[in-house]
Amino acid sequence: MLQAPPAIVGQREDEIDTPALLLDLDAFEYNLDRMTQLLAGTGVRLRPHAKAHKSPAVAHQQMARGAVGQCVQKVAEAEAMVWGGIRNVLVSNEVVGATKVARFAALSKEADVAICADSEEHVSAIEAAAADASLRLRVLVEIDAGGARCGIESGERAALLARRIAQSAHLTFGGLQAYHGSAQHLRLPAERAAAIEIGATAVRRTLDALARFDLPCSVVTGGGTGTFEYEIASGVYTEIQAGSYCLMDADYARNLDTNGKPVSTFRQALFVLSTVMSAARTGVAVLDAGHKAVTIDSGLPLVWDRPELTYVDASDEHGTLSYSAGARVPYLGEKVRLVPGHCDPTVDRYDWYVGVRRGRVESLWPIAARGAMR
Amino acid sequence: MLQAPPAIVGQREDEIDTPALLLDLDAFEYNLDRMTQLLAGTGVRLRPHAKAHKSPAVAHQQMARGAVGQCVQKVAEAEAMVWGGIRNVLVSNEVVGATKVARFAALSKEADVAICADSEEHVSAIEAAAADASLRLRVLVEIDAGGARCGIESGERAALLARRIAQSAHLTFGGLQAYHGSAQHLRLPAERAAAIEIGATAVRRTLDALARFDLPCSVVTGGGTGTFEYEIASGVYTEIQAGSYCLMDADYARNLDTNGKPVSTFRQALFVLSTVMSAARTGVAVLDAGHKAVTIDSGLPLVWDRPELTYVDASDEHGTLSYSAGARVPYLGEKVRLVPGHCDPTVDRYDWYVGVRRGRVESLWPIAARGAMR
Repeated sequence: MLQAPPAIVGQREDEIDTPALLLDLDAFEYNLDRMTQLLAGTGVRLRPHAKAHKSPAVAHQQMARGAVGQCVQKVAEAEAMVWGGIRNVLVSNEVVGATKVARFAALSKEADVAICADSEEHVSAIEAAAADASLRLRVLVEIDAGGARCGIESGERAALLARRIAQSAHLTFGGLQAYHGSAQHLRLPAERAAAIEIGATAVRRTLDALARFDLPCSVVTGGGTGTFEYEIASGVYTEIQAGSYCLMDADYARNLDTNGKPVSTFRQALFVLSTVMSAARTGVAVLDAGHKAVTIDSGLPLVWDRPELTYVDASDEHGTLSYSAGARVPYLGEKVRLVPGHCDPTVDRYDWYVGVRRGRVESLWPIAARGAMR
Repeated sequence: MLQAPPAIVGQREDEIDTPALLLDLDAFEYNLDRMTQLLAGTGVRLRPHAKAHKSPAVAHQQMARGAVGQCVQKVAEAEAMVWGGIRNVLVSNEVVGATKVARFAALSKEADVAICADSEEHVSAIEAAAADASLRLRVLVEIDAGGARCGIESGERAALLARRIAQSAHLTFGGLQAYHGSAQHLRLPAERAAAIEIGATAVRRTLDALARFDLPCSVVTGGGTGTFEYEIASGVYTEIQAGSYCLMDADYARNLDTNGKPVSTFRQALFVLSTVMSAARTGVAVLDAGHKAVTIDSGLPLVWDRPELTYVDASDEHGTLSYSAGARVPYLGEKVRLVPGHCDPTVDRYDWYVGVRRGRVESLWPIAARGAMR
């Protein structure tokens, strides 16, 4: 159920109740502006992925800096975005089930929305919902860009599916969805570049087949925070779907650049603020943030700005900090900023972003799509 | 933010929107009754841990079968329980921060509540809050029962802290909290028994020291689903705090009994219902439940009742199922029940339990303490 906000605007950071999800507004805005700069002049548009930030308040900041819309994974996320005032939303995923497809169709009356399909059955179900509601719906074909998860085989099979969409009475073919999720965290730039070249080749094969069928394709959308520069360089993508770039996390910080150093394009803007709640034993302090507060699917969180402290174990409600001999010992009640291992699922644990700037709470933004998994 | 329920009472299970958290009511009630039987005649009372189930609706079922109260880890969970009509709640953990302690103190006007401390600083803070509100608060001493996380050293140091509580103007010494979390999932019964014997020894040392100080100790509380039979056998515990027993999960199913077989005391009652949303490639089907829907901190979920299917990979919103050659191929739209790797954090992802019995939806119970981490 909805939780009360952990802070009040104007409070000092050390007065925030914990665990709380902090957004460092200077770093966040730096990241938004940096992405705008990186895309300037490329001809490629930004469609940030709201599965990471889950909040129309964040989406509006992105839109104000030129984003063309948002993408989401779930219809419930699309609803949160549209109801929060975002007028252009792509469900970058297949949706199955009559209830869900009907909800998507209903959204198309309120905003410019699109959805993906990777099989004829998906297309038939969307066509049925569109006919039932007397609507025209826009459908992209998702191709397998190398991730071997969702997506139809690229080339002729994908083009045949696009033709099926184009020939459906209530559907419009909206382009290609081509995202390679597991490529985002390949550590070496050459690995990421090679993975995205596989995806770009899949796109080119499909564009060639679409041309043979005389099917125009104005949108090729995909790419994430770890790889978007390679999608841009490929020349075939018209949109990139980076989401984490505005928040960042410990896992992205392990990606390396061509000099073998951590990629430093974006700044860490997302933190979980925690409190030392027990310090009964020498060498160990216990935080009030375990893996219910900061997910560990991509590794343990890091301690921000305190190199002598290490988060060594997460249980449901406790995080164990170890510290070296000679370190300043964490005291009971001390607040510690954690860098989440993975931003997306950690954000999805919270109802509120606490925006902080220069040590004060400046904003409380609702995470409207928290838990929106259907 | 709060999500709408995924079902309507009376629906068939295959009509439930997914991902959804299912409670198999026959198995759930079996588990509740089984625990009542196991405790009958032992003189040990049940104080189930609401950090697992997060719902007053579940708590009331437990209370109706004789539970003495509930325990929780967080003040926000205590609030959800008290506001949901549970009149006896132990915060089985330290609480730090003036705001939180004041919220706990306020709850004591509405219900019989208690809290833990493992240092003089905790005691001072609770005394200050009690004095400020002109209340008397009940405080247990948490001792380290072998988990090496929270808890003061057992024996004389713990007894000194108890005396400090008893001598505080606004506090009552409420007994000992002695829980060994990591013992719950030791696979062999001899390992679990040995771990709990360490905890029981710590309790005995502390009871001896309390006796020397003429401090009566009427409550010794602790124990979980994996070990409660050993806490009972020790003769020193007056309450057990099992929580998972009513739900169960894949990790508990890996605990072995003395015959080397999986412990079968309780039945699997908790499931995540998911849908096959893409089946574009041979040998693989993709579910709509990734680790945002079923946490993987204690391993991947298992597929229920379909031995030919294996959940082999979880990403944020996708679960990848593999199936063997010759298996019945999962079809697009097929519903699949998953057994969560770990029940507690998975429950904490959802706003509703969908109670099912013999294939129909019978109840929708709000998970009032979902996200209650402060």
